[in-house]
Amino acid sequence: MRIASIIVNGTQTLAVRRAEGMLDVAALAPEMPRSLTALLALGESALRELETRAKNAPASARIQGTWDYLPPVDATTKVLCLGLNYRDHAAEAAYDAPQFPVVFARFFSSFVGHEQPMILPACSPMFDWEAELAVVIGRRARGVTRERALDYVAGYTLFNDGSVRDRQKRTHQWTLGKNFDRTGPMGPEIVTSDELPPGAQGLRIQMRVNGEIMQDANTRDMIFDVQDAIVAISEAMTLEPGDVIAMGTPSGVGAARTPPRFLKAGDVCEVEVERVGILRNLVTNEANEASENGGK
Amino acid sequence: MRIASIIVNGTQTLAVRRAEGMLDVAALAPEMPRSLTALLALGESALRELETRAKNAPASARIQGTWDYLPPVDATTKVLCLGLNYRDHAAEAAYDAPQFPVVFARFFSSFVGHEQPMILPACSPMFDWEAELAVVIGRRARGVTRERALDYVAGYTLFNDGSVRDRQKRTHQWTLGKNFDRTGPMGPEIVTSDELPPGAQGLRIQMRVNGEIMQDANTRDMIFDVQDAIVAISEAMTLEPGDVIAMGTPSGVGAARTPPRFLKAGDVCEVEVERVGILRNLVTNEANEASENGGK
Repeated sequence: MRIASIIVNGTQTLAVRRAEGMLDVAALAPEMPRSLTALLALGESALRELETRAKNAPASARIQGTWDYLPPVDATTKVLCLGLNYRDHAAEAAYDAPQFPVVFARFFSSFVGHEQPMILPACSPMFDWEAELAVVIGRRARGVTRERALDYVAGYTLFNDGSVRDRQKRTHQWTLGKNFDRTGPMGPEIVTSDELPPGAQGLRIQMRVNGEIMQDANTRDMIFDVQDAIVAISEAMTLEPGDVIAMGTPSGVGAARTPPRFLKAGDVCEVEVERVGILRNLVTNEANEASENGGK
Repeated sequence: MRIASIIVNGTQTLAVRRAEGMLDVAALAPEMPRSLTALLALGESALRELETRAKNAPASARIQGTWDYLPPVDATTKVLCLGLNYRDHAAEAAYDAPQFPVVFARFFSSFVGHEQPMILPACSPMFDWEAELAVVIGRRARGVTRERALDYVAGYTLFNDGSVRDRQKRTHQWTLGKNFDRTGPMGPEIVTSDELPPGAQGLRIQMRVNGEIMQDANTRDMIFDVQDAIVAISEAMTLEPGDVIAMGTPSGVGAARTPPRFLKAGDVCEVEVERVGILRNLVTNEANEASENGGK
């Protein structure tokens, strides 16, 4: 099942995406929450019930007209990101391959949904892309073993870990360069784990910028897999339903190209992971975006 | 004014602490929110109104009996922490003094309130203290200049940036060692900035463990001051009312002592900053704490 967090006519809701259209969870299951985090917290049985209703949905459940995608997270979601988790990317970034998962944090203010503008920071010319697979936690997890780790996964989504390279590398902690407002597209939706291979392994992952392939790898090339990431992170902190672990990016980022290449206003980024989907975002100037808001 | 987030008889509320006792905001100002973040979002005039009512409070507004402190943050609060921000601590940690603010993130799950147990991680013998001053943002802030930076500060609180040193240093990103569940005491309350010198400079800061002074410095010894921190962070992200910036710790952490000294169950940590207050927490085993919860 594919579940998206969206806005229709100014109201936030969830939708199940199927071949026949986007089905409004408010119509399919009025008793269920409109937040993905809250839906996931209901557990596996609620998801199965929702899937059954979606398969048998009346035409009236289909969303008419347009909607906007939200990132599949909310302001209370913890988002942990792995760095240098593909050997060839660690090498291009001039780091040794890590011995343990390298983890940094992103806040909610840094995310945008599918088809929403990703904002080019005004203070830096070094805004870069990173195609990533992201894991969405389905059950509260603390001190999880490798053998059980995948039991805690609700599904997977796509992430573009937009990075302001000069700010990221100004000091040894990457936090600021990874947390510019609205620089990290996530979505379009969560694909539940039953639709993918275990740990979403063996899937082709690509970044395209204006249609040109910039990154092209396979999720099996990760140094630490989804189980490793859940073990390492849940040793420290309790993961909650809806929390996200971004699994790192393969080689081909702009900063490592010869000559380096960075994003500019008007560029279109597409993250694609086989069987998960495509996440597409237009790069927009901060100033333009602000004046658009001002004009609303 | 001193404002604490507390639980009384199972209900979360805010309290104004005065010499005569803890005054319940629910009694002083029934129309005001019970969350510190929401109260701060109302702005300076609401705080002044609350202060006036607190000064003229009837005896009936005093909280009778006991209460528990919550950390002065909620699950949507962004908490940014400066690392290596006192020259002598950077040296003891074997780092060069930073040229730019070194920033890492802590999630809500890592915090506890005043007098609440801080949890000794079961997986590591290297749990360490860090006395810190923390800044609480009062107004939405993005791209703030140094000259205006202090206008965005609502007040200050205390923080013990509890750190699991082996996990912090396993890789170059400190996130995991800084985010173990309930390892970071914060509080007891927010002291509004009108009660302190500009930028809370020139205040003595101490960490005591079981009464023994482990860190003893002055907030004027910071490499980057409060204005610098707000400029650097608000360049990247929008800070919201209630967001917190922890200003780093001076020398004297356990890992840098000869021989190294780490926290054990039964230790009591006290962070004190002159005119801000004292933050006191008992170190408790993870297993004991879990079984206590299990017994509830």
